[in-house]
Amino acid sequence: MPLLPFRKMHGLGNDFVVLDERAAPLGLTPARVAALADRRRGIGCDQLVSLEPAGAGADVFLRIRNPDGSEAGACGNATRCVAALIAAETGRRRVVVRTLAGDLPAEVHPDGSVTVDMGPPRLGWQEVPLAEPMDTLRLPLAAGAAEGPAACSMGNPHATFFVPDLDAVPVATLGPALERHPLFPERANIGFAQVLAPDRLRLVVWERGAGMTLACGSGACAALVNAHRRGLAGRRATVVLPGGELAIEWRAADGHVLMTGPVATAFTGQLDLAAYPA
Amino acid sequence: MPLLPFRKMHGLGNDFVVLDERAAPLGLTPARVAALADRRRGIGCDQLVSLEPAGAGADVFLRIRNPDGSEAGACGNATRCVAALIAAETGRRRVVVRTLAGDLPAEVHPDGSVTVDMGPPRLGWQEVPLAEPMDTLRLPLAAGAAEGPAACSMGNPHATFFVPDLDAVPVATLGPALERHPLFPERANIGFAQVLAPDRLRLVVWERGAGMTLACGSGACAALVNAHRRGLAGRRATVVLPGGELAIEWRAADGHVLMTGPVATAFTGQLDLAAYPA
Repeated sequence: MPLLPFRKMHGLGNDFVVLDERAAPLGLTPARVAALADRRRGIGCDQLVSLEPAGAGADVFLRIRNPDGSEAGACGNATRCVAALIAAETGRRRVVVRTLAGDLPAEVHPDGSVTVDMGPPRLGWQEVPLAEPMDTLRLPLAAGAAEGPAACSMGNPHATFFVPDLDAVPVATLGPALERHPLFPERANIGFAQVLAPDRLRLVVWERGAGMTLACGSGACAALVNAHRRGLAGRRATVVLPGGELAIEWRAADGHVLMTGPVATAFTGQLDLAAYPA
Repeated sequence: MPLLPFRKMHGLGNDFVVLDERAAPLGLTPARVAALADRRRGIGCDQLVSLEPAGAGADVFLRIRNPDGSEAGACGNATRCVAALIAAETGRRRVVVRTLAGDLPAEVHPDGSVTVDMGPPRLGWQEVPLAEPMDTLRLPLAAGAAEGPAACSMGNPHATFFVPDLDAVPVATLGPALERHPLFPERANIGFAQVLAPDRLRLVVWERGAGMTLACGSGACAALVNAHRRGLAGRRATVVLPGGELAIEWRAADGHVLMTGPVATAFTGQLDLAAYPA
């Protein structure tokens, strides 16, 4: 059996195993995804992403699997990584990445950074989704000293708490219960943001199905959107994540959210898939 | 610049990046070792190991670098992994791996498991080393409810606490201070062992320079030696580590310690070394 080639990429330390399933599906089971995502016995990653055939109107379909076997609707950093790959393949600067959350246009800049159009945020309670009708601007939810997060969907559900001192928030402790709070019937990504200036936020995100990561791209988009809705930020901001900075814009013209940041290939590799549990 | 090939291996989840520096040194700086060992932006590993020319009397020299830039004198799991590689290269079942801790003969068994002869333990206080003359059978040292560990060197310094309930020991909390206790002028690997039977120990090790790992091979050897010296075990035992089991024998005939266990290649890869900080 030939060895399976893969690529290990990351955006701000949010890291991905990239597999190519365009020619044929690999038959990835949850057990095999977990084994490949294992950082000591497998390759290791926050998410395992696959390139699949897109059909008309997009260059590639991007499937995003969490180590726990669940699928993520959207992952901004993975979309940027894959956009850079497809741009290199096609020789085009602009490509369209199809995801469960919709078609995301992306542009690779001369400096190698990538902007992805994450589309409009969804602000209705049914769209996040939340468990019952309520204003998504301030949810009746407290976590330690933090309370009243704003919620939106960026293709996946996000809640953003605004806190005066991010260093004082035990995110890894609070995250697991908040992710599964009854308010969120599909669970949620839980962000804690500190507003440094109207154009600069600090953010740490507990990711649904993945836990603490160095940088959550869709979480950064949600944080800017929620900060702007609350009057805490303008329409453009730099979001400072543990792994680095993303530039986020909630474009007035069409209401889309644009995320710009670096991507990198850590290495390429190959493995014997049959040696991993199926 | 050509891509640098590497191999990712593990023994019981104790994982290694294996580089080949036999033809030419790669000029690995501590910063580059740390970058390669980074699990999200690099390859990720407990230790980065290099094959180097051995000179007469051995098949390969094995250099073992911790992510913090320090060098490990011995690493039983890495020795087993590299022995399997060299055996495959040479077509021989028996090979000799030279390390800072001495020449370690190894044998690859038909089932793929590997036995490495770790040599004799060193039991003198100067040999561990400890800071001042004392009996290595019971050190004047307490850690929470645990006290009086035994110490020996297996090429690197080990102290083993014997505890009635390993699950009650907060190893990650106790480890950092114990590793750097003034008793240990070269720091030490700190093991916590629970005797299940005279031929079966459970063990968790805080590794010097690497922290919590799934399996510390030299620590398993030290635990069996120290358990036997204390009358808690025979000369052969299965040591159950978080990552799996090792068979350890303190051979009566010559006083050498033999460690047997599985090895695996997770994947092979290649990367652009120039893209990593020097």
